[in-house]
Amino acid sequence: MKGQIDFWFSLGSTYTYLSVMRCSEICSRNDVSTRWRPFQLKTILDELGGLPFKEGSPKTAYMWHDLARKSSKLGLKPILPAPYPNPQAHLANRMARIGLDFGWGEDFIQAYYRKWFETKHGGMEEPDLIGCLEVVGQDANSIMEMAKSPETVARLDAETDEARALGIFGVPTFVVGKELFWGNDRLEDAIDYCKMR
Amino acid sequence: MKGQIDFWFSLGSTYTYLSVMRCSEICSRNDVSTRWRPFQLKTILDELGGLPFKEGSPKTAYMWHDLARKSSKLGLKPILPAPYPNPQAHLANRMARIGLDFGWGEDFIQAYYRKWFETKHGGMEEPDLIGCLEVVGQDANSIMEMAKSPETVARLDAETDEARALGIFGVPTFVVGKELFWGNDRLEDAIDYCKMR
Repeated sequence: MKGQIDFWFSLGSTYTYLSVMRCSEICSRNDVSTRWRPFQLKTILDELGGLPFKEGSPKTAYMWHDLARKSSKLGLKPILPAPYPNPQAHLANRMARIGLDFGWGEDFIQAYYRKWFETKHGGMEEPDLIGCLEVVGQDANSIMEMAKSPETVARLDAETDEARALGIFGVPTFVVGKELFWGNDRLEDAIDYCKMR
Repeated sequence: MKGQIDFWFSLGSTYTYLSVMRCSEICSRNDVSTRWRPFQLKTILDELGGLPFKEGSPKTAYMWHDLARKSSKLGLKPILPAPYPNPQAHLANRMARIGLDFGWGEDFIQAYYRKWFETKHGGMEEPDLIGCLEVVGQDANSIMEMAKSPETVARLDAETDEARALGIFGVPTFVVGKELFWGNDRLEDAIDYCKMR
């Protein structure tokens, strides 16, 4: 392996969809390892002034159009705009952390984004998360209990503290050592940096 | 020529530095023509909620670091962070528009960014703009008078209205037809889109 990239994200993020769908393949092809690091981005956004995409703003309209355009280049077929913001992102991030610890995290995260972006629905609520757990063959009740436990809440809060200390203010952010690359478009720059260190 | 890109920008923008220094060369190499379109971005930002880079925020720290990193790849040597925000950007945009009409616009804009980013100073004030006009061989008094005339103010306001109608909310933004590409990093995407139309 030529180095390691920490892939920081939150399951409330729209652009993270693109990275979730391409990160492992492209890093593996470049012989770079990744650590997936879900955290509670919303906590940091609230401290900094709120969500980046306000309903009806031109930036939000651009984001959906750009996401459709970028998805198409990756062969993905999302139905956009998807429901946003995502009210259960904090719970989904905890499930993702558990899954990553136990080896089914990436599959769960991809199932989550396929549900959120590639099917029609009213918004990602608890039953949708349960559905995603079932898709990856997990016992939904026990994972839900773990995800709501004080230990998991504290684990994610600690990850969020680490993200804040690194200077992360949005996602996806790719981190190599202390060097930050913000945005799905910058994954290639992170890989290049990783290889030349 | 394989098409035309409208390069929308404001001389208050930090990332526009990178595009100003590379846009003409890369577009010319790709046989794509460009129209440089300065406008009063701040008017639109004020409508949408303010400047993107607040003093002391992690996003602002990232922006300066990222700008230094990207500048280095282009062989540029800015002294960062530079004074920000830029109080005379509205006047500088009007001078840029006049210069573009008369054929010395690109040279003026590059002189402006070299002064703002590549020399030490307290901030870009009127005497600095006069200095940039002199660098490109213009009579500063007459250009200043033109830049403050109601006709030029109205011209820039009309450009700003067109930018707003296109859905522009930040710069640099590259526009091909009605397709927007926001950010210096997306110039290559705009060129690709231009060539495949």
